Amino acid sequence: MRLVDRMDNTPIEVPRGLTNVVVTETELSDVRGQEGFFHYRQYSATDLARQCTIEQVWGLLLDGELLAPGHMHPFSDSVRSASALSSSLSSHLPGLARSASDGDPIALLKTALALDGAQRKTPPLYDQEPGERRDAVIAVAAEFPTLTAALWRLRRGLPAVAPRGDLGYVADYLFMLTGSEAADEHVAALSAYLVAAIDHGFNASTFTARVIASTGADATSCFLGALGALSGPLHGGAPSRALETLDAIGHPDNIDAWVTAQISDGKRIMGFGHPVYRTEDPRSALMKEVALRFDSPRVRFAVQVEERVTGLLAELKPGRHLHANVEWYAAIVMEICGIPPELFTSTFACARALGWAANILEQARDPKIIRPSARYVGEPAPVPIPAGVL
Amino acid sequence: MRLVDRMDNTPIEVPRGLTNVVVTETELSDVRGQEGFFHYRQYSATDLARQCTIEQVWGLLLDGELLAPGHMHPFSDSVRSASALSSSLSSHLPGLARSASDGDPIALLKTALALDGAQRKTPPLYDQEPGERRDAVIAVAAEFPTLTAALWRLRRGLPAVAPRGDLGYVADYLFMLTGSEAADEHVAALSAYLVAAIDHGFNASTFTARVIASTGADATSCFLGALGALSGPLHGGAPSRALETLDAIGHPDNIDAWVTAQISDGKRIMGFGHPVYRTEDPRSALMKEVALRFDSPRVRFAVQVEERVTGLLAELKPGRHLHANVEWYAAIVMEICGIPPELFTSTFACARALGWAANILEQARDPKIIRPSARYVGEPAPVPIPAGVL
Repeated sequence: MRLVDRMDNTPIEVPRGLTNVVVTETELSDVRGQEGFFHYRQYSATDLARQCTIEQVWGLLLDGELLAPGHMHPFSDSVRSASALSSSLSSHLPGLARSASDGDPIALLKTALALDGAQRKTPPLYDQEPGERRDAVIAVAAEFPTLTAALWRLRRGLPAVAPRGDLGYVADYLFMLTGSEAADEHVAALSAYLVAAIDHGFNASTFTARVIASTGADATSCFLGALGALSGPLHGGAPSRALETLDAIGHPDNIDAWVTAQISDGKRIMGFGHPVYRTEDPRSALMKEVALRFDSPRVRFAVQVEERVTGLLAELKPGRHLHANVEWYAAIVMEICGIPPELFTSTFACARALGWAANILEQARDPKIIRPSARYVGEPAPVPIPAGVL
Repeated sequence: MRLVDRMDNTPIEVPRGLTNVVVTETELSDVRGQEGFFHYRQYSATDLARQCTIEQVWGLLLDGELLAPGHMHPFSDSVRSASALSSSLSSHLPGLARSASDGDPIALLKTALALDGAQRKTPPLYDQEPGERRDAVIAVAAEFPTLTAALWRLRRGLPAVAPRGDLGYVADYLFMLTGSEAADEHVAALSAYLVAAIDHGFNASTFTARVIASTGADATSCFLGALGALSGPLHGGAPSRALETLDAIGHPDNIDAWVTAQISDGKRIMGFGHPVYRTEDPRSALMKEVALRFDSPRVRFAVQVEERVTGLLAELKPGRHLHANVEWYAAIVMEICGIPPELFTSTFACARALGWAANILEQARDPKIIRPSARYVGEPAPVPIPAGVL
């Protein structure tokens, strides 16, 4: 580690929100916002999304090696067996789904993950050998799609569908959601999105997973905290908002009036702009390319809106470099693949969980608690307790 | 905020684990490790623990004012009603407790809290008015004792006991655990521990709660993440380990041999030493004073061990200032009050949850995501994807 070591206790001043503060070194991924480029280890993440399976890319992140499909067997097998739920967990899902049937799918997913953690009794990360720790994070992450699909179906009174096993990870997710085998082009399209969503620099949920991992807590605790952070509106990753923009505009003739009104009301246009990218978001370009594989009026409308909104934003907010973000075309792609908008964030979480798994393992290799400090700026202490309150 | 503002994207180097990095300003509490002093707002925390009820101190942390008992009614009423469980949550607890009957009590508590969050559908923090946000964190924190006690009893085949309401917060916890009213001296002793455990500087679980709050996620998400961090072995807060030290020694005659063997094996003596205090831990002094109110052979043995261990540590580890930490006498006090050792960490969490509530509210007043960065130190990118893996 090249990070500075200090022996004294002098408080160290940094920007609010720890912006640009280097909290760790990572070999997993990086975002180059100025270049519009991001990568998983040494490979372009969008190239991986176009050309590799999600199992290959997850293996790359976890183990550092990009294996050929013919050599994926041991890893794919362990993922496949981890994605099947235990009968003791499965037996509780109908009751949980019923009892919070109009609750947020992410909140229900947290409940099921927590119950799974209580049933498994996974030891703290620091008490595990590296191999056990790897198994533990794979076990939790691989349940995300199974639980998401099962809870969704159960809430709607449909029976849960178990993973098939002979399908790949992405095809199996669509199968568990709908109960029937998805078309190849849907699997490929969703796979591109999910691979591109596995990781994205040091986002707030990944940071949360690593803070919890740094205390040595068990794998489930890290995922639960990360999922909580991901559910926050400032985290990003609610692609269904992009569909709301499309629906609010409704027709190409309304674009200009709607966008101008939003901007003069000081409102954001959901699906546009990103805190890191100052150029086109490479994930957005990928998702547009994937969406354009489908001959659909919805895609054509999204392209029209994107072009016009980008032009208007450049005019009305000069210098702000506001482009369509990943949510814009990701929403269209998920819609085409048959994923209900209520599950867009959960689907994003299914992908990001794979990145959390790799980040938790990386953090646990360096057992040092992440524990910053705060400056007390309240009333000077001590003041005697007033007799009147005793 | 006096924190530095920077416009460029230069990475900022800080110590590993963010040690001494000022991540926020707080008016809630502070620890002065060199002085052996810590305070909640302007008052000594241990004085508060000796003289005030936990409701008074929680109100002080949440609202900034230490009210006289006669003025506590509106707040006590809202805490009381928040500590009662909804029937839809209660109806699920027997099934949850059965299904993970040998699981960790903290993992079960997380499950119940997550289910409660799914049923409540609490909005994101940033979508709430300050009053709603305050209600939301009180609602979650006040369920900790009720859920801890109910799940514990249900796991052992006993019926859950609802909060009585006419008892105070601490007395009600003991009542819900045992089903009978606790002796006043037990209530006072446990109250002193719980008040002293509400907050303690910027510990890792509090930091986690604030990171998740900073994304704007809902209250339940913040508590779940914090509870995960608290469960990590590096967080501290597993007072039952102190009893294990006492039991391992067994008899005063064995102290020297046992301690010398532990130290020559390079092992820690659980119940001694703290990362921040270089003097006696003021919480430990308080807990010793509380323990000594009870005429018990166990207390006398703990005092003997403490005195001899402190002496031996000063001799064998000169300059390390190793004193009994809060866990040492807290364990004895909880044991005397009838709390099962398996629930010591949960009981600690019941107290710390009150501090998280205040920290979440403080964080949410300053809507800025806490999102540091990481330095990529992996293989240089991009490298073309090898044809052999496609």
